[in-house]
Amino acid sequence: MRVLHHYYLSSGSRFARLYLGEQNLDFLPKLEEYWQKDPAFLQLNVAGSVPVLLEDDGTVLCGAYVIAEYFDDILDEHALLSGTPAERAEVRRLFDWVAGRFEYEVVFPLIQERIIRRFTGVGMPSSTVIRTALSNLSVHLAYFNHLAEKRRWLAGQSLSIADMMLAASLSVLDYMDDMRWEEWDELKTWYVRIKSRPCFRTLLADQVVGVKPPPHYADLDF
Amino acid sequence: MRVLHHYYLSSGSRFARLYLGEQNLDFLPKLEEYWQKDPAFLQLNVAGSVPVLLEDDGTVLCGAYVIAEYFDDILDEHALLSGTPAERAEVRRLFDWVAGRFEYEVVFPLIQERIIRRFTGVGMPSSTVIRTALSNLSVHLAYFNHLAEKRRWLAGQSLSIADMMLAASLSVLDYMDDMRWEEWDELKTWYVRIKSRPCFRTLLADQVVGVKPPPHYADLDF
Repeated sequence: MRVLHHYYLSSGSRFARLYLGEQNLDFLPKLEEYWQKDPAFLQLNVAGSVPVLLEDDGTVLCGAYVIAEYFDDILDEHALLSGTPAERAEVRRLFDWVAGRFEYEVVFPLIQERIIRRFTGVGMPSSTVIRTALSNLSVHLAYFNHLAEKRRWLAGQSLSIADMMLAASLSVLDYMDDMRWEEWDELKTWYVRIKSRPCFRTLLADQVVGVKPPPHYADLDF
Repeated sequence: MRVLHHYYLSSGSRFARLYLGEQNLDFLPKLEEYWQKDPAFLQLNVAGSVPVLLEDDGTVLCGAYVIAEYFDDILDEHALLSGTPAERAEVRRLFDWVAGRFEYEVVFPLIQERIIRRFTGVGMPSSTVIRTALSNLSVHLAYFNHLAEKRRWLAGQSLSIADMMLAASLSVLDYMDDMRWEEWDELKTWYVRIKSRPCFRTLLADQVVGVKPPPHYADLDF
């Protein structure tokens, strides 16, 4: 069976778990503490980042973008990347926004400073980096909330990889109790909807050693 | 005719120019000083980033990834994203590496600190940020050089969007004279090969006000 190398507090990893779950593609999850730089893992992905999906035929898929587009290539149904080329472009624009800018400006710095630093023991968390990331967060959430107000799903009428990517990223932030849901009504409604999907279930059971999620994290009706 | 909103020292914009040129897709270039936050431009792309490609039918394509995948969707030939699904995954892995990590860890911070700050007049360039980016640069170049040694093109036997993206990014760094080509023999051989392609020509004529490229920048046989 395909093996997914992932880490709990990694947006891309969570995206892969949601994506594979939603598409009913079975996989064995393998927790990867990627900062340990395990040689066997670096052989799979020289970048040393998660997620990495190892297919039965030996194909190695590194990263959320590669995984999503690979299955779009090989599956007959384009379930999570559907529509005309222009509609697919809109899905990809938002996927790229979340997996790219949002990740680099918000999620990754927060995880890096608060969590990964603790495990690697290198340096002290930078309060400037954390403050900047949290201030960026509101700007992004205002736009996502606006989209959730105007559209059923992020990119339009259909559930897509853009929703999966945003849900993955926000679930990481929610685990760290950074989501002030009361400020984002429409986004919360969207999140409740996606959180209740079967593919989301395993994410809600994640437990990172030494980092306890807030009580509402696993609550479907928070 | 389609209009490409671009900026000279933007890796993604240069990718779009190379890509459209290589595919013989005509376009009108429109220089966009994106940091000015022109309302008409923000209507096209709320993220305010370049490149943005406006198609004749009104379709708006934001960013290098969206542009590349859109044309892969609509063109019969998959010229720059060719091969089996696994080979396409390898192209995308490297495209993503360059457009994502390499951009955020190296190219964007350098452009931001040295160039854009000067235009916006906000704050002083951070020497820490510049030093960190330049130190990251060597790590990435070592890997790209290794690939150039083992393969004809970055992702294998065929020229691909991964080559276009890396050539775009390195040409930005080369404009700022950050490339110590003498340290990267194989990468230089690869760059000479891609630099001599017709699509590259317009990039070599770029002139940013107040930033002069080194003499070898436009030299095909440097």
